[in-house]
Amino acid sequence: MTWRYLINVTGAVVSNEETESVLRLQIDATDGQARTGVVHTARGSFRTPCFMPVGTRAAVRTLTSADLEKLGAEVILGNTYHLMLKPGADLIERFGGLHGFADWHGHVLTDSGGFQIFSLEPKVTDEGATFKSTYDGSYHHLSPEGSVEVQQKLGSDIQMVLDVCPPLPSTEAVVRAALERSVLWAGRAKAAQAPARDAGSKQAQFGIVQGGITVAMRTESAQRTLDIGFDGYGIGGLSVGETRDEMLPALAAVTEVLPTERPRYLMGVGDPVSIVEAVALGVDMFDCVLPTRLARHGTILTSAGRMNLRNAKFADDPEPLEPGCLCEACSRWSRAYLRHLLMVSEPTAARLTTIHNVHWLLRMMEGAQAAIAAGTFDQFRSQVASVWD
Amino acid sequence: MTWRYLINVTGAVVSNEETESVLRLQIDATDGQARTGVVHTARGSFRTPCFMPVGTRAAVRTLTSADLEKLGAEVILGNTYHLMLKPGADLIERFGGLHGFADWHGHVLTDSGGFQIFSLEPKVTDEGATFKSTYDGSYHHLSPEGSVEVQQKLGSDIQMVLDVCPPLPSTEAVVRAALERSVLWAGRAKAAQAPARDAGSKQAQFGIVQGGITVAMRTESAQRTLDIGFDGYGIGGLSVGETRDEMLPALAAVTEVLPTERPRYLMGVGDPVSIVEAVALGVDMFDCVLPTRLARHGTILTSAGRMNLRNAKFADDPEPLEPGCLCEACSRWSRAYLRHLLMVSEPTAARLTTIHNVHWLLRMMEGAQAAIAAGTFDQFRSQVASVWD
Repeated sequence: MTWRYLINVTGAVVSNEETESVLRLQIDATDGQARTGVVHTARGSFRTPCFMPVGTRAAVRTLTSADLEKLGAEVILGNTYHLMLKPGADLIERFGGLHGFADWHGHVLTDSGGFQIFSLEPKVTDEGATFKSTYDGSYHHLSPEGSVEVQQKLGSDIQMVLDVCPPLPSTEAVVRAALERSVLWAGRAKAAQAPARDAGSKQAQFGIVQGGITVAMRTESAQRTLDIGFDGYGIGGLSVGETRDEMLPALAAVTEVLPTERPRYLMGVGDPVSIVEAVALGVDMFDCVLPTRLARHGTILTSAGRMNLRNAKFADDPEPLEPGCLCEACSRWSRAYLRHLLMVSEPTAARLTTIHNVHWLLRMMEGAQAAIAAGTFDQFRSQVASVWD
Repeated sequence: MTWRYLINVTGAVVSNEETESVLRLQIDATDGQARTGVVHTARGSFRTPCFMPVGTRAAVRTLTSADLEKLGAEVILGNTYHLMLKPGADLIERFGGLHGFADWHGHVLTDSGGFQIFSLEPKVTDEGATFKSTYDGSYHHLSPEGSVEVQQKLGSDIQMVLDVCPPLPSTEAVVRAALERSVLWAGRAKAAQAPARDAGSKQAQFGIVQGGITVAMRTESAQRTLDIGFDGYGIGGLSVGETRDEMLPALAAVTEVLPTERPRYLMGVGDPVSIVEAVALGVDMFDCVLPTRLARHGTILTSAGRMNLRNAKFADDPEPLEPGCLCEACSRWSRAYLRHLLMVSEPTAARLTTIHNVHWLLRMMEGAQAAIAAGTFDQFRSQVASVWD
């Protein structure tokens, strides 16, 4: 797969040179459409399918980089919207990007900022989006080119293009307009990244497929994004209000179009059943705040399903959160102790439940990898569905 | 030093037998009145002078027992008032006391609950105090005997007697009444603990000296508490509104009366200068929420004094909180990163600053121990005073 420059928004040809992708997906095994393998980057490699914990403001809430190393996380998300406002991309750049700032030696993927900004009811033109900061009410502007520049400064291993993500349900006209503008912006984002790539940057760039839950629009968006050509492909605009039954056909339409040799990243999806169903359709990467947010509210992920630790029946329970679990929380403390800390709002609770939930989901992804390699992914998928649906 | 039973409040002789103390202070070196050594208990030993981090609700805020082990903390405080209400002493007893509940293998000292209860404007008689729970507004009662029973269930290595702690300034009549009732209650607490001791309990019990800032009353309270006879002696009712210049003479009056071979614990004092001045007067043990509370608000303890991490000048500062510090926070992260996390309320910040402040204060205590052993405590004391006053 090669990286082609495209005609930019003004019509000028930026470059017609071909550049090798900075990122390579090595597929080790497949089971149906599901695949497991290794993504190789300039930094190193990470196994897929993978879950990427979300470090919104340069930290996964309650955790340190040391905690994430122990958990075996391989890719962490950073959030362009939050980080460009506080502490600012220039500052993070001076500290060696997010890796240097947070002393994190694994991979970092940054989103484009679009998802958060579109939730702030911005003023949007083809040029870009003007939005009001949730920190201090000040106005800021983000364009496809601006998002590329911010993400260059954040120094992520993988940057995402700025896209337009409409909520669901939306009218067909809204979904169509979002698709068109996302394609337009994707081209400009690639053009904006081209000089850095020419200069030897190893930062990968992923395009993002939109199109709501309409199969035809998903197919079209995937094809047009693919025509621009990226190191990998995000699938955005899902898990934003639709049911899983509405999501999966739209997702299937996308993975059918996308090339097998490029990583596919289903954005913002983190519930176990949706992850496993998406893996079955050939998706490789996932992120979501769900496991960490649930943890802080006392909802524990276990192989028997969700467990509400606030439930009074756990007050006197000497078992660990999940018997047999090897996470730091389960290796030492009882449900009774963790529930007590949670009920009296001791911050120690949120950290330990977060460690458990992230551990659990990372191990579930390893289970998916192993099942694909063993050719038993269907059983794995049924088992997850039977517990979680 | 032996443990004598006394005549209880009804006038009956509880026991006239003598029992060996369950706790032994081995003094390794002295420098003036300052001393350094080891307290030996049934559980093991801890070095003095020592600072005991406060684990109010069975956890030091933001930390786990694993963190405290790494920090080298040897004694942790537990809070009777909070724990008797949530999760309740019976529950903690079923989990093997605070040690089993929190999986903490170091020492635990529990307070009597008095300090918190007296801040709730309780109804107090000679029998005990009735107070309103800050959790749910329900009414509860605590007597000297009840506090002993709760602390037996909490399973601490050292329990404190219930005392009356008036705020300062208070009238002489108020301080006198608190002294009298504290002496009365100390006797009853010892009597209440006697059956357990007879049955082989290794839980130590400390009396508490009151008397405000009046030297004569401090001397009298120390003597009368000593006459009852405890494994060690708390010095309460200081650092509750008076100046350091008012506190130290009162403290000196107490340490002059107390026997050298018993540990002395200045309750609730945690600022570096007061600690060092108290060590100079022969105090061995300290606790305070100050270092952990300061940490959560971004005030960092360093050998150059307090540092307000919220200050804008640290926004771009690549140095660790304290250059040369070996704590987990300083070993990996910059002031800039930690300040950023603090300013955006990421909970990771509070944990890392707490680790630093606890590390710093524990190492300061080790510095005091070393200085006493080397006969250079005066220089150490001047150096701390020059930075912190």
